[in-house]
Amino acid sequence: MATVYIEASMSLDGFIAGPPNSGFEHLFAWCRNGDVPTSTANSTRVAYRTSAASAAHVRELNDITGTLVVGRRLFDTTNGWDGTHPMGVPTFVVTHTAPEDWKAEGTPFTFVTDGLAAAVELARWAAGDKAAGVGPGSVAWQALDAGLVDQVRIDLVPVLLGGGTLMFDRLGAAPVHLGDPRVVTGTAVTHLVYDVTGGRHA
Amino acid sequence: MATVYIEASMSLDGFIAGPPNSGFEHLFAWCRNGDVPTSTANSTRVAYRTSAASAAHVRELNDITGTLVVGRRLFDTTNGWDGTHPMGVPTFVVTHTAPEDWKAEGTPFTFVTDGLAAAVELARWAAGDKAAGVGPGSVAWQALDAGLVDQVRIDLVPVLLGGGTLMFDRLGAAPVHLGDPRVVTGTAVTHLVYDVTGGRHA
Repeated sequence: MATVYIEASMSLDGFIAGPPNSGFEHLFAWCRNGDVPTSTANSTRVAYRTSAASAAHVRELNDITGTLVVGRRLFDTTNGWDGTHPMGVPTFVVTHTAPEDWKAEGTPFTFVTDGLAAAVELARWAAGDKAAGVGPGSVAWQALDAGLVDQVRIDLVPVLLGGGTLMFDRLGAAPVHLGDPRVVTGTAVTHLVYDVTGGRHA
Repeated sequence: MATVYIEASMSLDGFIAGPPNSGFEHLFAWCRNGDVPTSTANSTRVAYRTSAASAAHVRELNDITGTLVVGRRLFDTTNGWDGTHPMGVPTFVVTHTAPEDWKAEGTPFTFVTDGLAAAVELARWAAGDKAAGVGPGSVAWQALDAGLVDQVRIDLVPVLLGGGTLMFDRLGAAPVHLGDPRVVTGTAVTHLVYDVTGGRHA
């Protein structure tokens, strides 16, 4: 069955956003500080120009990803990525109520109203031989906390933000054990890929 | 002048102790999970048996360290390491009042009552061509916050503890910028050595 991963750019002190909602210029500096372009399905919103090492890492993630699960708030904030998620794959939006005014035809979004676990299960099924990504944001740690995640991919950024939104806040399932990471050294980022090896739910 | 470093075993979610004061069996598993012994100046208290990679990393730290700065609480908790700090170097204890009942003769401890910055300055001076280590514990982030630290050495442990004592809690000087780390891959640990490149104090 498809692997489920979560992924984030995180400061060394554990934040995926600084106080309040600042710090993105530091967290995502690695996405724009190199010579190697990597296009996405929505290059108006997201396009990379990174070190060669980071480019290979980003391409790998794009290649393995079959589906995504995202939260409703992010969907709304991005206006559904104007119809095209940068990863260009079927995307399951966790929500209490599907929006009435969203034209779903021709877009890759499916609204799931019976909870995160159901959305992850759908995404896992739909991903086939590929992987399902969950997040970013609170759905990522919720999935981790619920024991639904197989792989944790951290783009560790060499900055201390001192406050903001923690990647792993309020993790009730702790301790969660991970394997030793695969390490890819970029520029202003260290990519770490961990398999979840055990937790209260394992 | 001597480099000042801080160092800690830290979970991927940023904790140097779990809730409440648990988790050390996870955070320090890497110190005892290998075949290569590294003795210390107080092997009754601390002796390593690690992977070869971690052993080299520990030896390097022992080799470069000329002096230490520690907090009074740790000094008391360990009863002054029974007179011998595991690193076997002159150690400056930051305290409001020097203890009256401590026999300082023949032990490497000096009590500094005029603040952390003064203790770090003394340690830096006394370290000569070597480095001064600050910590563990709250003196480490206090020194970082005060702009006194040149290098951050993190032994990143593949576990999520979900709560406890944060390594970088309450960092007022953020954002603090670091360089890309030197990476040493151990077993159940990834050693990351960062130079501080900039902060509010830089």
